[in-house]
Amino acid sequence: MTITDPRPAHHRAGFVPAAPRTGRLRPLGLDEVHITGGFWAQRQSVNRQHTLPHIGHWLEREGWIANFDLAANGSLAEGRRGREFSDSEIYKYLEALAWEIGRTGDDELEGAFRNLVDRVARAQEPDGYLNTNFGRPGQAPRWSDLEWGHELYCLGHLFQAAVARARTRPDADDGLLAIACRAADLVCEVFGPEGIQSVCGHAEVEVGLAELARATGEQRYLRQAQLFVTRRGTGTLRPIEWGQQYFQDDIPVRKATVLRGHAVRANYLAAGAVDVAVETGDDDLLSALVTQWDNTVARRTYITGGQGSHHQDEAFGEDWVLPPDRAYSETCASIASIMFSWRLLLARGATQYGDLIERTLYNVVATSPSASGTAFYYANTLHQRTPGAVPDPDTASLRAESSLRAPWFGVSCCPPNVARTFASLDALVATADAQGLQLHQFASCSIQTRLDNGELVALDVQTDYPRSGCVRLTATRDAADPWTLSIRVPQWADGTELVVTTAAGEVITTEANKGWATVRRAFHTGDVVELVLPMRPRLTHPDPSIDAVRGCVAVERGPEVYCLESIDLDLASHGTVSDVADIRIDVAAPVDDRNGQPLVRLVAAAAEPGRGLAWPYAEHSLEPAPSVSIDVPLIPYHDWAERGRSTMRVWLPMAAQPNLDASTTVDWGSEEPGGGRERETDPSGPSSRTTTGTRT
Amino acid sequence: MTITDPRPAHHRAGFVPAAPRTGRLRPLGLDEVHITGGFWAQRQSVNRQHTLPHIGHWLEREGWIANFDLAANGSLAEGRRGREFSDSEIYKYLEALAWEIGRTGDDELEGAFRNLVDRVARAQEPDGYLNTNFGRPGQAPRWSDLEWGHELYCLGHLFQAAVARARTRPDADDGLLAIACRAADLVCEVFGPEGIQSVCGHAEVEVGLAELARATGEQRYLRQAQLFVTRRGTGTLRPIEWGQQYFQDDIPVRKATVLRGHAVRANYLAAGAVDVAVETGDDDLLSALVTQWDNTVARRTYITGGQGSHHQDEAFGEDWVLPPDRAYSETCASIASIMFSWRLLLARGATQYGDLIERTLYNVVATSPSASGTAFYYANTLHQRTPGAVPDPDTASLRAESSLRAPWFGVSCCPPNVARTFASLDALVATADAQGLQLHQFASCSIQTRLDNGELVALDVQTDYPRSGCVRLTATRDAADPWTLSIRVPQWADGTELVVTTAAGEVITTEANKGWATVRRAFHTGDVVELVLPMRPRLTHPDPSIDAVRGCVAVERGPEVYCLESIDLDLASHGTVSDVADIRIDVAAPVDDRNGQPLVRLVAAAAEPGRGLAWPYAEHSLEPAPSVSIDVPLIPYHDWAERGRSTMRVWLPMAAQPNLDASTTVDWGSEEPGGGRERETDPSGPSSRTTTGTRT
Repeated sequence: MTITDPRPAHHRAGFVPAAPRTGRLRPLGLDEVHITGGFWAQRQSVNRQHTLPHIGHWLEREGWIANFDLAANGSLAEGRRGREFSDSEIYKYLEALAWEIGRTGDDELEGAFRNLVDRVARAQEPDGYLNTNFGRPGQAPRWSDLEWGHELYCLGHLFQAAVARARTRPDADDGLLAIACRAADLVCEVFGPEGIQSVCGHAEVEVGLAELARATGEQRYLRQAQLFVTRRGTGTLRPIEWGQQYFQDDIPVRKATVLRGHAVRANYLAAGAVDVAVETGDDDLLSALVTQWDNTVARRTYITGGQGSHHQDEAFGEDWVLPPDRAYSETCASIASIMFSWRLLLARGATQYGDLIERTLYNVVATSPSASGTAFYYANTLHQRTPGAVPDPDTASLRAESSLRAPWFGVSCCPPNVARTFASLDALVATADAQGLQLHQFASCSIQTRLDNGELVALDVQTDYPRSGCVRLTATRDAADPWTLSIRVPQWADGTELVVTTAAGEVITTEANKGWATVRRAFHTGDVVELVLPMRPRLTHPDPSIDAVRGCVAVERGPEVYCLESIDLDLASHGTVSDVADIRIDVAAPVDDRNGQPLVRLVAAAAEPGRGLAWPYAEHSLEPAPSVSIDVPLIPYHDWAERGRSTMRVWLPMAAQPNLDASTTVDWGSEEPGGGRERETDPSGPSSRTTTGTRT
Repeated sequence: MTITDPRPAHHRAGFVPAAPRTGRLRPLGLDEVHITGGFWAQRQSVNRQHTLPHIGHWLEREGWIANFDLAANGSLAEGRRGREFSDSEIYKYLEALAWEIGRTGDDELEGAFRNLVDRVARAQEPDGYLNTNFGRPGQAPRWSDLEWGHELYCLGHLFQAAVARARTRPDADDGLLAIACRAADLVCEVFGPEGIQSVCGHAEVEVGLAELARATGEQRYLRQAQLFVTRRGTGTLRPIEWGQQYFQDDIPVRKATVLRGHAVRANYLAAGAVDVAVETGDDDLLSALVTQWDNTVARRTYITGGQGSHHQDEAFGEDWVLPPDRAYSETCASIASIMFSWRLLLARGATQYGDLIERTLYNVVATSPSASGTAFYYANTLHQRTPGAVPDPDTASLRAESSLRAPWFGVSCCPPNVARTFASLDALVATADAQGLQLHQFASCSIQTRLDNGELVALDVQTDYPRSGCVRLTATRDAADPWTLSIRVPQWADGTELVVTTAAGEVITTEANKGWATVRRAFHTGDVVELVLPMRPRLTHPDPSIDAVRGCVAVERGPEVYCLESIDLDLASHGTVSDVADIRIDVAAPVDDRNGQPLVRLVAAAAEPGRGLAWPYAEHSLEPAPSVSIDVPLIPYHDWAERGRSTMRVWLPMAAQPNLDASTTVDWGSEEPGGGRERETDPSGPSSRTTTGTRT
């Protein structure tokens, strides 16, 4: 296999996960964008320092890497450990390492990477087959369980890892790309036009094959991805209890109007289908995928960007089925959703894709890992009713249920998926086109790329977003010709301003509408463009069709969804109201912003003896009249469950009668209302401070 | 094995499923109570005519009965069909047949029963072991999978069937009781004090063993049931993804405060534990079970009486997790709940148990089977968002999901469970104690029993309840001494009256409070007691802690929960409003009762182009202003989905501003508002009749 790149120079791939041959925008890779500080740099640092070693440790400890050694030494059938898809976690880990090495040139990781590739290589069979769960004596035959076997799924992740490596270290002699190509060749043989006329129960090989085609120029891989996309939905998989939609095998991709079934499968498939559509010029397919994205975002997506509301089948619910308790919102589904959105963004250049990516990054991807980077949510509930159990940091969790974050899972797809996303996050920040540069995500970073016209353009971006809404871009090179700088103005950002201060001292201020804010000029070193986003907290109402949150509001600020955690409630009420079930939000009161933290006015009823002890349906409303009013700080949803066991809710029920007499409300008086993370709860606090409002 | 009955005469069991040795009330069996007409007689007739043959047909067709033949001829390992618990369906079917034969003396069923018992008998191994899924060459060893194998569960159902037969045909020579006793003897050997120190993953053998002990006098069976109850909750089963609570193996029964985990398992276990408690005089255990019942009913039960809100593990949710869409509310859980409630009713004599039994019978058990008796709901959702698929009447359904009722399921526990419940329903109607008779359920029936004092008392009950609220009891024997007639007055029945008209013509009218309405006298033939229950439709509000139905009300009338089905909405609005998602209920308008059918005023918004096509969370309320007002009939929830595909909801969102100008509202003018079941939809109806209310 000779590696060729037949694409025109402007589409030569940088260090990017997805490099479409055509499309509205060209992605800038880790070689062109470097995140240098702020919210995401912090997470990238934790990812490198803690998460990657943590994953490596657990992959060894659980024996999932050792399965490759067993394959090589012939003792696989007896000794294999882990689920049928555990190989994929090694590949996602390899992909994360490849990006991190590409980003930082980390020698220690380079050693770990090469060592791991060697172990994988030894498990590959002479004809290219590579999977530790099938095909050897004592194991089920190859391809004998397409519904659940995940063989092609695992290979899809292998291909993505190989592409990451080939793009970031094209001259490396580790052999991962060759391993991938041998496996891909076998897939094309076995599942080609004359081969097995079916697909994998878990989509992913499509996006992997398409990218491998882009990275190698091997068009057979693209045709195979196309075949898989075309076959899907024709009922080639055996029926299961949850219906063919679980596998997206119910309706052909180009006929579907919305994502459905297993949310990770659905989004990986959609991402791969966009790849096939743009590489083959299949506008009908692309148009179907745009419709699917629109309808999924309009009716099947949580306010966090999370997708998938069923625990049972990890699947999308029907339209409007978005319960906050028992929200599944799997971390991997959010990452797959970002992959889908990113590919549509490159194809079409519209800002709604960047909006959803931002929302999903801040409110699902950032929520999954702990601040320490060594514990994770698999599912991301929006309402924790009882303080969760504390997972043992030394035991893989059997449950995807939310409680506190767990160090590892029996099905541990999420941790390495988060790791590869953080390690390649720089590649989601900016793109270029013939006219100039587009900034999609707001992070302190340096950007440098060569435009089509040969112009080398460079920017320095500084921001402490999302703490503040000021994003300051400074040109760091002189341009010979004018080019267009486009900045995404989020849907929520009513009243955004754009201030251009030229190196010469000229200041131009304009209102920036939602969508693209653009500046076209021959930028000079020192020209500054400032985007000033309004960061006041917002009350957000759900569509009334979302029955599960009727009568509730959420609080957002910038791209972040906020939540009420019982710890803050307990602190603010001095223990008189300690559960998030007992409060209502007084929406007539303004939501304050104290140093970037929203402060809401809540009302609560005095405890009524006997409530909740009898038949809970009655001829009169059982809503208790509020008698206490408290101002309570909310925290970003992604920060919850970092202070021990708690209850939590994103959606706050509105007080039926929000006209509490404000004069009876006492501010708890602290400069730091409700305490911060540092403040200890004071159960012995004076109960006389409990305030009684007007009983209505 | 000699069959003995050491109990005092007044506790000699009639034709009853549960015959506790001690307790507040003595159950009257099918030999003492005969349902003669009305709502339940109709269902019993369909059960006999259609459901029992239907079940027999499917059990043969799916090969689940043939598994016993294969066991006898030694070809089981190769030929077995069905799930690991399929034997239990045969036993539940046998139990249903036994009750039906006991009730009606049906010769045709007697033949089927004996034939089936013969086939079961041949499969029993010499040491008493009986299960077609384990223990033979090529199968997994006996008792090797206590978590999922269901061996003891299946035997529990065998024991219940054998007891049903032994009580209704004590002199029959079919051998079923002997089969059961041989199996029970083996269970006592294998799982006794010195045996395997574990329990079955699915409780049921406890209630079976306890009853077999009562029917045979064999105390070893009771001690074994006690052992199983005591072991449960000590973590003897292997951990699974859904936690030990799935099996109720998380907390010892006597320490638990609420039902949790798999809802059928939880209720079967609780029923068996009550049996153990009352037989062994274990008041602490009984008291724990009373608390569990109270808390489960107060915080984990649907308005229908249904229990279990998770699809994933068919389990109870946490307190207050009662989503109407994706309600699981498994039919079998409702039957198990009735078994639990009935045993507490016998032990304690309080009316709340009869209240829940009535609610569950009318709104879950009656909902499961179709009017034809040949299709069933497994899960009973309270909100159908999209018209369900039409199940093939010739195919066993893989899915428990609600859509239209299905003829059979891969896991088909519910149909035979419904059948045995209907066949023995007469045994839930009345009880006796030293003072007299208690009437728990309102059905036309004849009742005759001998009181402790030797007095033979007899009543004739006539009612068309729940169409009307009048229940007329006529004494059909003269009593020498006074005795007390007690009638349950349901919790919802504010304003009930009791009218006693003596044979001599004296009339005494009293108000009957919720709980027991009692009349004590030396009844004479022709004395009439009439209970007059208020049957006006009621608006019912949920406890505000049930987040999923915030801002909604349900409509009830008598014991029945009502629902809005799209077919009626479409008819009443002449097609202008056709989906239950689009309406709000105007709670300021009275709920009319037209010939027993509640008629509610709904408002709806004009269709807004673009709604539901964009991001569904906004800074302002997205609730559309209503512009149409319609009066729409509701139907009993148990009758829904009998007229083809539809959407449906029990919980109706309240209009935010219910002050529509009533003068602009037009009654659609039909004598039969919204049409009845017979009326065809008229899509060509004059659109000019669409009424526009005040836009608010």
